[in-house]
Parts: sequence; structure tokens; C-alpha cells
Amino acid sequence: MEEYTVVGKRLPLIDAPEKVTGRALFTADMELPGMLHARILRSPYAHAKVIRVDTSQAERLPGVKAVLSKNNAPRVKVPVSQYVPSDKVVFDEKVRYVGDEVAVVAAVSKEVAEKAIRLIKVEYEELPVVFDPEEAMKPGAPLIHDDKEKNIAGSIEMGSGDVEDGFRKADYIFEETFRTSSQRHASMETHCAVASFDSAGRLTVWSSTQLPFQLQGLLAEYLDIPISKVRVIKPHFGGGFGSKLDMLVEHICALLSRMTGHPVKLVLTREEEFSATLSRHAYIIGLKIGVKKDGSLTAIKAHVISNEGAYLYKPGPLGVAGRGLIKTYRCPNMKYEGYMVYTNLMSGGAFRGYGNPQAHFAIESMMDMITEKLGIDPVEFRLRNYRQQGDMNFADLPITTSGLAECLAKGKEQIGWERRGKPRGSVGVKKRGIGMACCAHGTGTSRARLSYSAASILINPDGTAHLSIGAADLGTGSNTTLAQIAAEELGIGLDAIGVTSGDTGTTSHDEGAFASMTLYNAGNAVKAAVIDVKRKILLRAAEKLEAKPEALESKEGRIYIKATPEKGITYTELIREASKANWGNIAFMGEASFENTAFPPSFGAQFAEVEVDTETGQVEVLKIVALQDNGKAINPTVVEGQIEGALQQSVGYALTENPVLDKLTGKMLNPNFANYMVLTALDMPRIEVGLVETYEPTGPFGAKGMSELPINGTAPAIANAIYNAVGVRFTELPMTPEKIFRALKGFSPR
Amino acid sequence: MEEYTVVGKRLPLIDAPEKVTGRALFTADMELPGMLHARILRSPYAHAKVIRVDTSQAERLPGVKAVLSKNNAPRVKVPVSQYVPSDKVVFDEKVRYVGDEVAVVAAVSKEVAEKAIRLIKVEYEELPVVFDPEEAMKPGAPLIHDDKEKNIAGSIEMGSGDVEDGFRKADYIFEETFRTSSQRHASMETHCAVASFDSAGRLTVWSSTQLPFQLQGLLAEYLDIPISKVRVIKPHFGGGFGSKLDMLVEHICALLSRMTGHPVKLVLTREEEFSATLSRHAYIIGLKIGVKKDGSLTAIKAHVISNEGAYLYKPGPLGVAGRGLIKTYRCPNMKYEGYMVYTNLMSGGAFRGYGNPQAHFAIESMMDMITEKLGIDPVEFRLRNYRQQGDMNFADLPITTSGLAECLAKGKEQIGWERRGKPRGSVGVKKRGIGMACCAHGTGTSRARLSYSAASILINPDGTAHLSIGAADLGTGSNTTLAQIAAEELGIGLDAIGVTSGDTGTTSHDEGAFASMTLYNAGNAVKAAVIDVKRKILLRAAEKLEAKPEALESKEGRIYIKATPEKGITYTELIREASKANWGNIAFMGEASFENTAFPPSFGAQFAEVEVDTETGQVEVLKIVALQDNGKAINPTVVEGQIEGALQQSVGYALTENPVLDKLTGKMLNPNFANYMVLTALDMPRIEVGLVETYEPTGPFGAKGMSELPINGTAPAIANAIYNAVGVRFTELPMTPEKIFRALKGFSPR
Repeated sequence: MEEYTVVGKRLPLIDAPEKVTGRALFTADMELPGMLHARILRSPYAHAKVIRVDTSQAERLPGVKAVLSKNNAPRVKVPVSQYVPSDKVVFDEKVRYVGDEVAVVAAVSKEVAEKAIRLIKVEYEELPVVFDPEEAMKPGAPLIHDDKEKNIAGSIEMGSGDVEDGFRKADYIFEETFRTSSQRHASMETHCAVASFDSAGRLTVWSSTQLPFQLQGLLAEYLDIPISKVRVIKPHFGGGFGSKLDMLVEHICALLSRMTGHPVKLVLTREEEFSATLSRHAYIIGLKIGVKKDGSLTAIKAHVISNEGAYLYKPGPLGVAGRGLIKTYRCPNMKYEGYMVYTNLMSGGAFRGYGNPQAHFAIESMMDMITEKLGIDPVEFRLRNYRQQGDMNFADLPITTSGLAECLAKGKEQIGWERRGKPRGSVGVKKRGIGMACCAHGTGTSRARLSYSAASILINPDGTAHLSIGAADLGTGSNTTLAQIAAEELGIGLDAIGVTSGDTGTTSHDEGAFASMTLYNAGNAVKAAVIDVKRKILLRAAEKLEAKPEALESKEGRIYIKATPEKGITYTELIREASKANWGNIAFMGEASFENTAFPPSFGAQFAEVEVDTETGQVEVLKIVALQDNGKAINPTVVEGQIEGALQQSVGYALTENPVLDKLTGKMLNPNFANYMVLTALDMPRIEVGLVETYEPTGPFGAKGMSELPINGTAPAIANAIYNAVGVRFTELPMTPEKIFRALKGFSPR
Repeated sequence: MEEYTVVGKRLPLIDAPEKVTGRALFTADMELPGMLHARILRSPYAHAKVIRVDTSQAERLPGVKAVLSKNNAPRVKVPVSQYVPSDKVVFDEKVRYVGDEVAVVAAVSKEVAEKAIRLIKVEYEELPVVFDPEEAMKPGAPLIHDDKEKNIAGSIEMGSGDVEDGFRKADYIFEETFRTSSQRHASMETHCAVASFDSAGRLTVWSSTQLPFQLQGLLAEYLDIPISKVRVIKPHFGGGFGSKLDMLVEHICALLSRMTGHPVKLVLTREEEFSATLSRHAYIIGLKIGVKKDGSLTAIKAHVISNEGAYLYKPGPLGVAGRGLIKTYRCPNMKYEGYMVYTNLMSGGAFRGYGNPQAHFAIESMMDMITEKLGIDPVEFRLRNYRQQGDMNFADLPITTSGLAECLAKGKEQIGWERRGKPRGSVGVKKRGIGMACCAHGTGTSRARLSYSAASILINPDGTAHLSIGAADLGTGSNTTLAQIAAEELGIGLDAIGVTSGDTGTTSHDEGAFASMTLYNAGNAVKAAVIDVKRKILLRAAEKLEAKPEALESKEGRIYIKATPEKGITYTELIREASKANWGNIAFMGEASFENTAFPPSFGAQFAEVEVDTETGQVEVLKIVALQDNGKAINPTVVEGQIEGALQQSVGYALTENPVLDKLTGKMLNPNFANYMVLTALDMPRIEVGLVETYEPTGPFGAKGMSELPINGTAPAIANAIYNAVGVRFTELPMTPEKIFRALKGFSPR
């Protein structure tokens, strides 16, 4: 692999000093003259007609500037994206989950707004509720959307070959049902926005959004104004993980700003964040696999019921899950069916992994069951059957790079895989086990034209540069890694690159930070923009060297005459020289856009060692080894940080993160960090993260997407390790001490 | 002339509603968490050594966070531009005018900062002073800069032919000395900035600057950091007129922010604005012209002494003045010498017209004297002798367009020129007169590469567009007119264009708003950027129409197949269609830059009718007719607004604006709007503004620069009208009632 100067280096994030010193400004820090504060009144019922909303007392409260409810809110559907037909009107005639919006107040302070919403009197007519998607699918179930015939919001089918024929050819057939939970994103920063209409009808929105440009379009559509009148700016960002792909608060702020002529800020409380935004979809996964004695697969059939909650926000994960279930392993016959089902719960949305953590939990647990039955080593089994180079990826394009074999080899060594077959270690009532799982995840979305970035770069008179990217840095460090790509390609240091990003006013369009694609898409755009500006610099070099541009060659930041290589000039010298001669007056600019058409998957393997307390059901994860091939790591520290963060979420997904719902009312009972158990630094197991670098030919400097991949492998690796420890197979997430205790003691698991 | 849809229309400024409703945010409105406020301690002496600065008491005042003085300020020269060797250190060992900076305090409030500067004890050693530049040039004059041998900061010479030979061939020789005053800019918004260093050493500056990109470079140079670490943002802007080309407060805020780790705001008071920033240079102009009986000129010799004040900021006006003096009329022999002389006064800087108002006062008064002597009509004389098409412009390039003849014809009619030769009207002691003057002004500066703009444009998914320009809108309406250019070229409405500008984070470089060049330079860049994006749209159209791009032709926003013109699609349809199919995902981007190499001059004629009260010396301007050829007026209302604003300044320059200095101390005695007589709306004469449109081939849609031109012609037109009224020639500005009274009564004029 080529040696780089800036790329591949462990450089600190360019915004780290601001963040660690507390000076970085987030959306919630925004203060504008005359700004109002909004608070939302939410439904206490999971399903009810809103008969009457009396806001008169609230309106009379001094300091209240506007109240919006079904009495005066526009009856306009809230757009989600062009792929999803909107089914939501905000402040509707009906509420469909505990937390649904009933009214909102804009007032001179949060306190006044809070007081005002308590003065609003609402008359509800309660309706029958349904929380279980299997119940909701049944005829006669309470209908959640009156304009629809049933509670099925949509379905998806895919497959090839003949699965029934495949099952006939199988030596063994495995069948199991897996259930996953509706994990909460638990971002440090809740959903928040400030919206400000100016007197000319132009709207500026500061928002904690992952998609400034898409949000700009959604706001224009909802408010029925041209996109040219909307500017979206994403300040520093306190975590999204998919929760901030959707317009949940911005349109409400915008309506209030238009009503009042004031800027309006809305910051959700932690309770609202947990119980009135979006979560990972809870799935019921039926999986049936046929296999021959030699371990080759003959058929995979998967069936998923997705609990969509009250509104349909993201059908996408169900497709990703399907591809994860049937397209991870080589198999001639496969069939997938998925159903999106409305229930009276908070809606499902995008969450890191986007359907794949659910699918991986099922498929990788099932593979463990198969290998045990066949007596094949799980690692060996994957080496034989996992889709690799030459196979097709999730988007049915050839896989160009995979470092999976090396991930598996290194992982075995680091976890001490040879210990797994031997008698399990046990200290008194504590039993130890080792398990593993593979994972794969595509880069970007294969939805036409949703995988798109643009960038522009300006060379400053002193030879430094300014990079403008539409891409939103979500705290992932993308501004740093993208600047590294620019610096490397331009042959200057990272310090010499200034960055603006995440602002629709920059004109460098970007589809947003999701689908593990920012580095890949925006990175390719940045590299191309730099190549564009280098071409322009080359023309100037030709003048300087008194040669024709075509007589020149460029290498390692130096331009020279092909015939006489000693006659040359570095970019930096050239820019500096040109700048010195004409201070302040050089403007080399480059611009490029990149559309993803390859969607290269990244691969990984995770190994877990656990200790199960058989008296209490408590699982201690002793160690996780996570190895990944993400192509070239542009900044290994950033990549490792992403893996470590994903593991924090995926260990929690496996064991502790459990939204508890009141079975009668559907109300979330633990909407806070005290009772919803997100792992803290002290709770984290020992983790060993390793990068197996390949060179993805379509990626910037060989890089592929990486940040979702690691969340996919952990839950099954832990489940497989628990099985290895105690011989009980768990098929429902999270694997709480109570469930394990019950299973070990022979009680019913639910 | 072609008919346009958006260009040439009287559309309201896009930011007018924000401004008239008071919602537009200016630099002084900026509030940042933890922001400190700065106040400057200034010298009471025009020339003194600073022996000792004791800041200890100020530092102990609660709320004071930093004090900067010669004790701790960096001894770094404050850069001006690459063309001007810096001669200023801020907080120096010596003060050189009343108002020079001695110390600055950053504190938690303005009040604390104000209190703190009064606690600073300074020991001065007074030095001899010199205010008159002729005195300052003499051997033995007090030396203002110890490291220089004399008080002459620089000189300039130009000419061609042989003036002495020219004078020998003349029938008459005219010689006169003209004196002009140091007019103050009197912007509504004083100089102000907020500077904020982040913890990573990156600086963001919000500033009322005309040149965001140049200021970015100046700050980087002064602070010794790479340009990539500096971002300059220009919020709404309350008037510059040239005063905000220079870094007068931003570096001080930046130093204080670096010291304290806090954002720091500095807003100059009105008194500081008047007495401690920059002014129009006061000139002493010696002019000698040889002329034949037929009115042809044989020689022009001009000599200018420019009072630069304490520091050299802008040598440029002296060159502009020289070209204005010797290159406005056809003449085979010409010679110019100009001297920049240091004095112990506030420095001269850039001011609308940039040397030309001074030059025009002299040359156009002199032409009036010549025509009277020769008995030629002043209008006729100009038609014969003024440089027009075929002649060379100020930059010695051929003049491509001039509507001067039509301006003169229309002006004669509108003022009632035929009344001028007849007995003057007089009502008792009041005598009426009519006078006129021509004016010319180049578009942009011919300094290599200082005349440069870039722009980029992004087509939104709904067919609207976002325009990003480096150009700073100074309240001139350039954002509106540039958006009109984009809209016209793109074939969409003005409402469908969003604009960001004046931010070095936009990456569209721009040299700044000065030299009447924003519309011309940035307009050309905007037009080229739109052409670039249209080319990309054309490629997509080729796909859509199933034709090769080269088989297509585009006209009036419609693309069609050359061979079958009925088969086509409009841009708007195409964008809309593409967008509908792929919501949020289309990113047509265009980018371009433009370098000015033509500098086309604009031409105008102004006619004034005045009434002089011979008892009091009071002059009432009854009417001004101002006609201009600025090429195509992109937005006639905007152009007329610029002319009206210029006339407000130029009538004041002629008659009332008079900075009164204490003859002993050099202190300005009227640094406020009560005593420095800027004309109010009620004081303004009746004005008739007319546009004579030509089509400048190098300009965007035929436009040329326009905003400085009208300030050049008024003072001589009024002086000529006064002469016509009372028969006395005034050669010194402003022509105050006292001077006129003295002249009419036969007293010494000074």
C-alpha cells in the first residue's frame, strides 16, 4: 500500500479542543434576539380521538405568544422522504401513541411555556389499543389509521431460486423465531431546533440534523415555500445514530416562528427523547435454513414482522434486514418477506445498523446452532460460506475487497479460540464461554441518488486551503477525516485546511450523514474537488515552468517537466510564489460531486468471552475482540473510536437496554438514564479493536464505510458465548439477567 | 437591446423587509456566550512619546479580563495590503495623532471597560506637531516616523508628451491651486467587530468589513497563523463608503480573544468614528492647463500634495486623482506629480471616488474658467474634448461604451441650460446661477489581480437555486442585483434564488466591495457560474431528449434538438422532472471566477442650479440633474438609489461637511452629527436622476460600475453654478457660507 503523509495518521479531531473545553456551540446554545421557547403538550393516551382542545387559558397567560393545536394547525401531512408516503399530520384529530403531539406553546421562556401547556384543557375519547404487531395484523384489531384498511403499512419481498426445493435437498432444517427490542438512541443531545423566519419570508433553521439538505427540502415542502427560501445550519452535534434523519421538531418551530415573527427554539426533554421520538424497530424474525452435512446451505427463508409504531417513518431497515438475513451467506435458494405493522407505540426509525443488528442477531445465532449440529468449527464454517470477493454484495454488485479471513484469523488468536472447545472455566456458580459472529454492512444506500456528496475547495493566498462540504459532521470526526483526504491529495498538512460543513448555504450539496457513507461519498467528492483544483494549479505551473501543461507530470505534490524532471516546482511553492506576488488575490477553486454506485460492504468478526452467574443470571462480558476490514483507515483513531462507540451500543443492545412499557397503557416506564440502562464507561467490557486494512478501489484512498458495521456483530457473539457458557440458546433481546435466570431455572422465558 | 425578464426590473431589495422591520442582525447585534467588551484608550496628544503606561489599577477592577498596551502588545506591524509597506504598530511607543491607540481593555461589559480605561495612567512626553503637509515637507519639520528620513511617505509620477512644449504652443495658460477637505464617511454603523478564537486556535471574526477575504489574510498575517485558521463573516452592514477596507478594530479584538479565551466585541463610538478612523484625503492641487483659441488642450500639468495623516493607508487615491486630472480630457502633453505627506492628523483612507472627487473639483472648475475665457459653451467644450469611444480610458485601454453625449443633451434640457446665458435671476439679495460638470470613473482597479470574484450556484430539487458569492453586500443591494443576474441567466424568478455572501466559509473568493466593481466582477462570475451549471443541465437534457449534447441548442431557458426544434424541454421542467423522480437528490452545481481586465469607465454629467444669499453667503441648491451612463442598469431603482446616496455625500462635500480641527492640538472639534453637517433628507435639494443606458460588451448583461461616479461631479457643478450666480470662483472645499460671505465682501478667503 502506498505511503501517505496525512492519510492513515492518528491525528486529533480538529474540533476536539472546542469540545473538551466546553466552548463548542450546539443548537441548544443558540440565542437570538427576541427568541421564544416552545413546549409540546403530548397525549397521555395511546389511542384516542381528540374531541376538544381549549387553549384559551394558556393564551391568556402573560408571556405566551402563540398556541398551536388541531384548532389552528395546518392539516398538512408531515413529509418524510420521497420513498415514504406520509401518514402523519401534526396536532391531528386523533392521537396514536402516548407522547403524540396535541398542542404546542411558544412563550418568552421555557418556564412560561411549561406552565402554559398545563393550562390547556383537552377532551379525549379513548379508543381500543394494540401494541403487539401480530395482534395488530389480525382482522378486527383496532384500526390505527382510519384512512387505511388495515394496520399493515407496507411489505417487502425478495429472493431467488426455489426455497422449497432447497429445503427438500437439505440434510438438516433449522427453524427458529427471534425477537429484538426497540432500542433507544440515547444521544447526549436531544432533538432540538431554532427556526427563524425573516420579514421577507426566508427561513433559517439551526438544527441537530443529520441531513441539512434533505431537511431543507422537507421544510420547504411542509411549509409550501421554495427551497431557495430555506437555509438549514447544523451547529456542533451531540449524537444522532439515525434518530436525527427525520423532521420531528423543526417544522413545529418554523410554524411558530411564522405565526409570531420571532425565532423559536424547541429542545426536547430527556423524557420526550426516550418516549416521543423514534427508536430501533422491534422485530419478530422467523428464520428457516436448510443445510447439507458438509455445511453448504441449500435454502434460507426469512420472515420479519416489524413493529412500526404509530407512524411509518422508515421502511428501509426492513429491506436491509432482509438482505442481511438472506444475502450474507452463499445459498442458491432464498426467500424473504417483511411486514411493517402499525401499533399504538412510538414509531420505529433509523438506528445505526438500520435493520442489520436485528438480522445479524438471528442469522449469526442460527449459524452457531448449525455448526454445533454439524460439528464444524464456527470460524471454519464462515470461511467456507460467508460471501467474499467474487460473490455479490447486498446491492447485487461484485464484492471487490474483503479482509474477513484475516479478521477471523486474528480474532481467533486474540480471544484464545482454542480454549472454547475445552471444558468451560467456572468459578463457583460462574460459568465462562466464548462465542463469535461475523458481520457485514454496505457503504451507502443503493436507493437511486440518495448516495451523493459534493465538495469545493479554495486555495488561500498563503498556500493553505479552505474546504467546503455539505456533509454534516455528527461528532464522528468526518470533518477531520475529510480534511485529511484533502490535505493528502493537495500535499499539505491537516493544519493548513479550514473546513465549513453542514450548512445548506455552502452550496456543496450532500445527501446527509447516514448509511455509513459520509467518508466514502464526501471523501470521494473532496478528493475529486482537490484533483480539480490541482488541474488548475497545473495550468499555472505550466506558465511558471514555461512548458505546455501536457509536457508536465505531477507526483508527490511536485510538478515537473517530463523530459527534464529536475525542472519543477511543488504545489506549495507555486501557490506561495503566486500568492506572494499577488497577495490576497489568488483564487484557485476546485469543485466536484460524487455519486455512489458501488456500495462496497465492509466486513468484520467479533469474538466475545462471557461469564454467566448461574445463580443470578447476570452476564459479565469479560472481553470483546472486534476486527474490521473497512478498507484503508483514513484516521485509525477515528475508526477505532467509532468501533468502540458501536460496541457500547451493541453490548447494551445485547444485554441491558430495555424500554419497559406499561402493558395496559403503552406508556414507557423508564424514559431516563437512571432506569434505561445505557452502558457507562465503567460498565464497558475490555475491548480489543483491530483494523484489517484492504484497499477498496472505489473508495477515497481505499476507504470503505465503517461506522454501522460493528454494531451488527456483538449481540450474536455474546449470545453464542452465553450458549457456550451455559448451554442455553437465547433468541430474544435484550438478554437480561431475569430472562437468563428464568431459562437456567427452567421457568418460561417470557 | 434584448428584452429581459428579471434583469432591468425595479425589484425590491431581497433584504429590505428585514431591514425596515428592524430584524436584520448587524455586527453590533452579535452576542456570544462569555463575550467580552473592549474599549480603547486614545491619545490626547497629536505627537508624543509614550513614556510609561500603568495599567495596574485597571487590571484590578472587577470584571476586567485583559489590558493591552505597549507593555504587552506584540510589536508587529499592522498590515495594510501587499502594495503598502506597513508603518503602524498598534499600542506603539509613540502616538502620532489625537486618537492614536494607547491601550485597550476587555471586560465583562462596556461600562466596566469604559471605567477601566479611565484608570490607566499614561506618562507622555509631548513632541512638536505638524498638521499642514506643506509645512511637513520642509526640512526641519518634526519627523513623525523616526525610522524614516522625512515626512514624505511616497510619491507618484505619470505623464506623456512634453508639457513644456505644450505650454509653448498654447494660446492661453490657466493656473490655479485647489484645496479639498478631509470629508468623513459618516456611516450609520461605526467600525465594529467580534473576534472569537476557539480552543483549537481557529479564529472567527464577525466584522463590518467591505473585504472579508482580504481581512482574513490581514488577520492571518498579523497574528501569524495560517489563513485556513481564520474565518471572516460579514453580517448585515450599515455603510462603508471605503472606510471599511482597512483592519482598524478586528486585530485588536483578535488579540484580546487570544489572551482571554473569550469572544471580544469592539464597537467604536461616533466620536471615535469621526476622529480615530480614516477620512477622505485633503489635497492641495496645483493645476496648469494650456489651451488653444479653438478650445483644444495643448498641455495639462498637475501637482498634488496629499495629507496622509499619521500613517500611510491608501496611496491609491493619489494615482486615481492623477489619472482623473490628466486623463479625462484629450491632450497630447501631460504630466502629473503627487506626494503623500505625513502629518499629525488622522490618516486618509479610501472614500467613495477614491481621489476622483478632489481631481474632478479641480479639473471641472478649471474647464469652466477656460470656456468662459474662450467664449465656448461648457457643454459644447466637453463634447469636443472629453475622452469618449476610441480614446483610451484611465487604464490606457480603449473606451468601448460612453453615453456622455446623451447625458449632456438630456441634462441641458432638464436644467433649462438656455437660461444660463441670460441675466441671472435674483430675488432681492439672492442670486441664482446654473453650472455643470462632467464625471467619469473606472470599474474596478487596474492593480493586478485585485479585481477578482468567484461564485457558485446549486440548483435545488424544486428548480429553485442557491447562489453563493464571496462578494460583500454593503447595503448597496448587490445581493439582489447579483441574484437578478443569476435568475435571468437561469430563466427563473428572483424569488427562486437564495443567496449566501460575504463569508470566507463560502469558498467563493472575492476581492471585496470597493472600486465600483462588485456588480461587474461578481456579476460576471455569477453569470459564468450559471452558464457552467446550465452546461451540466444540458448534458442531462441530452439524456432526457435521447439526443447527443452537441445536437442540442438552448434559447430562452429551453433546450431543444436543432434538427427538430419542437422536441425540447425547458430548464425548469427538466430540473423539476429530475427532482420529482429523485426528491432531494439532484445536485447540479456550477462554479466560476472572473478577473477584470477591461476596467470600463462610466460617464455622467451633472447640472446644478443654486441660489446664493449675498448677505449671508448661504447657498441653496435648488436642483441637481444627474445623468449617468452605467451601461445596462440591472435594477434601475438600485442604481438610482446609489446616485441619490452619492449626491447626498457630494452636496455635503461641496458645501457643508467640514471637519474642524483645533489649530494648536489637532483635535477634531466637531466629531458628532450635531456639528459635522451631513445633509439630512430635509436638507437635500431637489434631484433629478436619469439613466442613459449603453451596453458594455464586457459587463454582465451590459452593465458597468456605477456607485462612485456620481460623487465626482457635484462639487464642481455647484462651484460653477455659484460662479455663474455671483461671479466669484471658489477653489476650496467645502464652500461654506463664511467663505462665500468673506469672498463677496472682499475679505481674505481663508
